Amino acid sequence: MLSKARVKYIKSLQLKKYRLEEQRFTVEGEKSVLELLQSDFSTETLIGTPDFFDRQSGRLKHFTGERLQVSEKVLADLGFYQSNKSVMAIARMKPNSKPDILGGEFVLMLDDIRDPGNLGTIIRIADWYGIYKIIASRETADFYNPKVLQASMGSFTRITIYYTDLIPYVKDTTLPVFGTFLDGESVHTMTWGNEGILLIGNEAHGISSSLEEMVTRKITIPRFGQAESLNAAVATAIICDNLRRP
Amino acid sequence: MLSKARVKYIKSLQLKKYRLEEQRFTVEGEKSVLELLQSDFSTETLIGTPDFFDRQSGRLKHFTGERLQVSEKVLADLGFYQSNKSVMAIARMKPNSKPDILGGEFVLMLDDIRDPGNLGTIIRIADWYGIYKIIASRETADFYNPKVLQASMGSFTRITIYYTDLIPYVKDTTLPVFGTFLDGESVHTMTWGNEGILLIGNEAHGISSSLEEMVTRKITIPRFGQAESLNAAVATAIICDNLRRP
Repeated sequence: MLSKARVKYIKSLQLKKYRLEEQRFTVEGEKSVLELLQSDFSTETLIGTPDFFDRQSGRLKHFTGERLQVSEKVLADLGFYQSNKSVMAIARMKPNSKPDILGGEFVLMLDDIRDPGNLGTIIRIADWYGIYKIIASRETADFYNPKVLQASMGSFTRITIYYTDLIPYVKDTTLPVFGTFLDGESVHTMTWGNEGILLIGNEAHGISSSLEEMVTRKITIPRFGQAESLNAAVATAIICDNLRRP
Repeated sequence: MLSKARVKYIKSLQLKKYRLEEQRFTVEGEKSVLELLQSDFSTETLIGTPDFFDRQSGRLKHFTGERLQVSEKVLADLGFYQSNKSVMAIARMKPNSKPDILGGEFVLMLDDIRDPGNLGTIIRIADWYGIYKIIASRETADFYNPKVLQASMGSFTRITIYYTDLIPYVKDTTLPVFGTFLDGESVHTMTWGNEGILLIGNEAHGISSSLEEMVTRKITIPRFGQAESLNAAVATAIICDNLRRP
């Protein structure tokens, strides 16, 4: 039912190069695909098992795109995750455009988060804490990477990411820029105000020195034991949790 | 220099079965090995490049175990991580014995944390927040798995883990048991007291129903957005951070 060329095309979308060329990406797994369909992404094709289309016929009533029925085996072969036994989707990427930052809003800024699992986890954390815009350096992992989407557990459908050169972006902003260092104000006792950029550094090297100069609020996560540092996603979560406290 | 049998033995320690038989495990990478040497683990063998032994001769002054010099290529072949270009160690596992819980202490309890990366990240978080004892279900990932040690970033040297059946353990304790649910007290406003068990549920299924009945303090991480849940390690970090606030 699927031509060889079509199979090749779908698999090619696992790679950033082909996603950029085609401006399409794939989403795997029932939970993520159902969230995709409820989002403002444009979904073109659903590739699912007969069982998926049967079970979800109600929710698919308004889906006007292409539907392809395949066996579990074919689905496993098409996707990045062989454990997916239900459905995958092909959707259009959104344009990489600069988001409007509203007054009274916090946004995340990622300075080279290279691990796709970390980026996906950060997207999920942002969605938990109601932070919907992420500004990312061009070296940050690709939002549409299957591992990023998977780790985000569907939260990618509610988050907008903008890849850009961070230094000109920060030069241009009037928002306070919060960055984590060893000698900053404690996140347990400081006041946050009601808006700002939360800058998260690279997994191995932290915040780059050229950006460090532009941090207007140095902050610190208090340590009570002996670990040298925290994982970037974990630090993001603790910052967001402290920020949102009453 | 290394016999075929020795190479086979060292590589076999990547598998839990052989670690248990031999009561030995391997540690890879310079940072982790240096922390291992400063810990109360007994290190038997260092397998390193000539460059490693040169550079670290000062710190190795008191190391009386076996030293094997190998090339980077041999080292890459011996280890789980081919990116390790410096040193690996063979050390003795500690006995799986029930730790004494002191009055005024918090400990972590892991109900089937199956992902080694999650377990390693949780160990690092525990070490950051000064929580040094972990009680883990028998289905939890193995502490000595190379991926766990790697993700712990050396923190495994300061944490004691005890694998046991959680239900009899909890039945036996007089400590409060804190567990995360959707309808508990907010971690932002509750009081913690000065001791207790922090129960962390499985990545997919949360806290098992048989343990849920034994939770004496149901707690909740407040949500400000729309994600359905948080990653288990992220939830652990937020709980620990709130617990340690002044």
